[in-house]
Amino acid sequence: MQFSAVQIALLINGRVEGNGEITVNSFGKIEEAAAGQLTFLANPKYEDYLYTTQASLVIINESLELRQPVEATLIRVADAYSAFAVLLNKYQELMQQQLNGIQQPSFIAPSVKLGENVYVAAFAYLSDNVVIGNNVKIYPGVFIGPNVSVGDNSILHPGVKIYNDCVIGKNVTIHASTVIGSDGFGFAPQADGSYKKVPQIGNVVVEDYVEIGSNTSIDRATIGSTIIKTGAKLDNLIQIAHNVEVGNNTVIAAQAGVSGSTKIGSHAQIGGQVGIVGHIQIANGTRINAQSGVTKSIKQPNTAVTGSPAYDYTSSLRSQALSRNLPEIDKRLADLEKLVQQLLTEKVL
Amino acid sequence: MQFSAVQIALLINGRVEGNGEITVNSFGKIEEAAAGQLTFLANPKYEDYLYTTQASLVIINESLELRQPVEATLIRVADAYSAFAVLLNKYQELMQQQLNGIQQPSFIAPSVKLGENVYVAAFAYLSDNVVIGNNVKIYPGVFIGPNVSVGDNSILHPGVKIYNDCVIGKNVTIHASTVIGSDGFGFAPQADGSYKKVPQIGNVVVEDYVEIGSNTSIDRATIGSTIIKTGAKLDNLIQIAHNVEVGNNTVIAAQAGVSGSTKIGSHAQIGGQVGIVGHIQIANGTRINAQSGVTKSIKQPNTAVTGSPAYDYTSSLRSQALSRNLPEIDKRLADLEKLVQQLLTEKVL
Amino acid sequence: MQFSAVQIALLINGRVEGNGEITVNSFGKIEEAAAGQLTFLANPKYEDYLYTTQASLVIINESLELRQPVEATLIRVADAYSAFAVLLNKYQELMQQQLNGIQQPSFIAPSVKLGENVYVAAFAYLSDNVVIGNNVKIYPGVFIGPNVSVGDNSILHPGVKIYNDCVIGKNVTIHASTVIGSDGFGFAPQADGSYKKVPQIGNVVVEDYVEIGSNTSIDRATIGSTIIKTGAKLDNLIQIAHNVEVGNNTVIAAQAGVSGSTKIGSHAQIGGQVGIVGHIQIANGTRINAQSGVTKSIKQPNTAVTGSPAYDYTSSLRSQALSRNLPEIDKRLADLEKLVQQLLTEKVL
Repeated sequence: MQFSAVQIALLINGRVEGNGEITVNSFGKIEEAAAGQLTFLANPKYEDYLYTTQASLVIINESLELRQPVEATLIRVADAYSAFAVLLNKYQELMQQQLNGIQQPSFIAPSVKLGENVYVAAFAYLSDNVVIGNNVKIYPGVFIGPNVSVGDNSILHPGVKIYNDCVIGKNVTIHASTVIGSDGFGFAPQADGSYKKVPQIGNVVVEDYVEIGSNTSIDRATIGSTIIKTGAKLDNLIQIAHNVEVGNNTVIAAQAGVSGSTKIGSHAQIGGQVGIVGHIQIANGTRINAQSGVTKSIKQPNTAVTGSPAYDYTSSLRSQALSRNLPEIDKRLADLEKLVQQLLTEKVL
Repeated sequence: MQFSAVQIALLINGRVEGNGEITVNSFGKIEEAAAGQLTFLANPKYEDYLYTTQASLVIINESLELRQPVEATLIRVADAYSAFAVLLNKYQELMQQQLNGIQQPSFIAPSVKLGENVYVAAFAYLSDNVVIGNNVKIYPGVFIGPNVSVGDNSILHPGVKIYNDCVIGKNVTIHASTVIGSDGFGFAPQADGSYKKVPQIGNVVVEDYVEIGSNTSIDRATIGSTIIKTGAKLDNLIQIAHNVEVGNNTVIAAQAGVSGSTKIGSHAQIGGQVGIVGHIQIANGTRINAQSGVTKSIKQPNTAVTGSPAYDYTSSLRSQALSRNLPEIDKRLADLEKLVQQLLTEKVL
Repeated sequence: MQFSAVQIALLINGRVEGNGEITVNSFGKIEEAAAGQLTFLANPKYEDYLYTTQASLVIINESLELRQPVEATLIRVADAYSAFAVLLNKYQELMQQQLNGIQQPSFIAPSVKLGENVYVAAFAYLSDNVVIGNNVKIYPGVFIGPNVSVGDNSILHPGVKIYNDCVIGKNVTIHASTVIGSDGFGFAPQADGSYKKVPQIGNVVVEDYVEIGSNTSIDRATIGSTIIKTGAKLDNLIQIAHNVEVGNNTVIAAQAGVSGSTKIGSHAQIGGQVGIVGHIQIANGTRINAQSGVTKSIKQPNTAVTGSPAYDYTSSLRSQALSRNLPEIDKRLADLEKLVQQLLTEKVL
């Protein structure tokens, strides 16, 4: 899609300086943008790029005083960064709105209920009794199992798999190849050393405004529900085991894993590659540093922890630093041993 | 599916108390179940829930003496937990048996051999010379490469990808988006600093009664086979490199990774996020704690290890505890240094 | 495919000893190969297997003197290992060349441009304005978003998902279920404790001769490009965050993760399960040991680091060893404390 400088100025309530007829069709960073691209300048430390950028159109602050002539067309607004963000969001909405209707071949069981303005791509599979809300976008290769419901405005990217009986809220985004509702890892050891599967008949509930990255796995509950609460954000390649709860607006970075039945409070921040054992509680506002291993409940809200096993952030960092100094500690100890030995010997003599 | 209390009592050899005509269509936990659901009470500590549950039907022990009236219909059996597990298994079998026949559009090469009572979903792809056993269930979006065989009663969940020449045993379950037989990570460094691919022409053999979680990767052997032996259970997001062997009834938790050519014995238990280097042996019955990094062969069966690098569980925990005390150790050392210095000074004086 | 001993000898410029009419259709290790298989003997320590192998055909060195009669047909060449590798590569090329044409049902938007000799499998999805080079192989269930280009000779294995506007170079191989171009993990905290999505409008550029394993996630840039440079090799289940750069011929092992905006130089070697924080620089030729956590820029080329947090390899190993000895250090310290106390007491007395 092509937009002219004048069209864009209208969208963000800005004022054009230069050629208003010039058109752009994509976005770029000011230092990398090419002809036909739109960029912005908000941080004064990048001002030099304004005079050399190849971008066709630059959004700048109303207050900026030019030190040199600029080749690009300019749009002046009160706050260049906000105006740019507004444009990005409008652009992405526009892209999503273009997706519409049922492509063929797709598989939609006769009992499926579809909302209005829904996109079902080719090779998507909707099983019996699936209920899809309004404005939902279902990309190619998505599988939706029996009795699943998906709320209004949610987006299921290519290859997302949702097993039977799971519930996906409104305004949820799930990225490619993520799996919701695979069986929990439950096996009962038998007398002969083999394992017998414990049936996993619960489900997964993903509440509203949740975003989940790509290649993440969220297992269904053994019984009851694994729950990802409103506003939580999960990155890529994360493991959420059966019967876990992730609280409102909690953020989990890539490759972290949460073991079975652990309950994480709201507004927690969990770093990349963190591991959390099963059957514990993590208080609201807990911050867990990347690669930490959490082995015990964290009861005090807003605690920061690090290390494996994880404990209090500050003292853990101090121990880590001393750990690096162990060769020196070892030497100090050996020196002392010699001195004391010497004192003892002299005393005896 | 709706079942009446009388029908269920018949299945588990139980005795109905209350309205035998009441019907249920799903399962719940006693404290969360709603009308129309079936639950059970086995643990006496949850008995209070029996008098408040919204479930329509509760399985209880023959021996339980009620302290208050119960609204739900009851089924009394010798062992409520076992009876409930029996029901769950029957229910899941029933669900699987409903899946049957070849949906369109699917892609089945003319040379494919299909067993009896097979389910091939829409968008499944079966390449040349694939052999599928009886009662196999192939969900949407599954890819099966040339010359792959899949044994009786196995289930391939949506989006499973199996590369050419791999062998899948009987009664195997593989969860969504898991990849079996991708190329091993083998590249030979060249004089110019680039890497040349080492062709990976082996395969993966998954033996009988193996279960594999979602988003897991099992690479094919460079030559020969990567082998997952009978009864092994692998969780989600696991990496199994080329030429690895995983022994009978070994259990591997989520996000663990095993490097090339390592052989793991039988009945081992490997925790989440564990890493194991290549070309080592792990003895039968080894237990590896979550997040450990195993860098050497473990030769003694039934050893427990932890840490990164991993060693003996008990002494490793002791070192970890002391590691936390390093600030205190550092202080004790400084105090001693002062005292000894004082003694030396006094002696000189 | 069946090949006779004479046909194979011709391909590798070898000399047949024994039955030249015998045919083989696959490869095996000398100690495991079965009738109908081809193998080789290069390492003299495996010579005993030559006299017992079940393989039908064995490639051996011209110089090898037999100590016993051999049942298999032999092909003698100057260097058995090289000849075998040549055969493997030819075989794999042959297998790929057989894949050709457009299978149905596939989805190819009218605006897509296809090169010559392209394979598009059933259930592959090519969106608007996709450009596919010559000899590209697109397996079942692949999704290619709008405006993506894929260079000559590249292979996209089953279920690969490439989001809009990404650029895939020539001779690139991407394994099953890997996701290229999912949204970066960018959310701005709001005053009410919720998070607002930062639009991710950049792309991913994968340069020539890159190979990427299965179930890996490479996020698109917030703005600009996430870049995987020429000749880099990435294993399975890797996380590459938004705006990361991976240098030429850098190798990353399975389950490693690189956080946003970090730039990794060329010829680096990054071990399995390594985590690297965001916004740092990793110098050319850096070697990072498995499970390490890198928290600071590494500026000196060709440095080796280990540990979490990672530092200099040699001193880190020394600290790790002492860490194991902490119980002993603790005991030495306690002994010294007693001795010094004794000296002090005696002095006072």
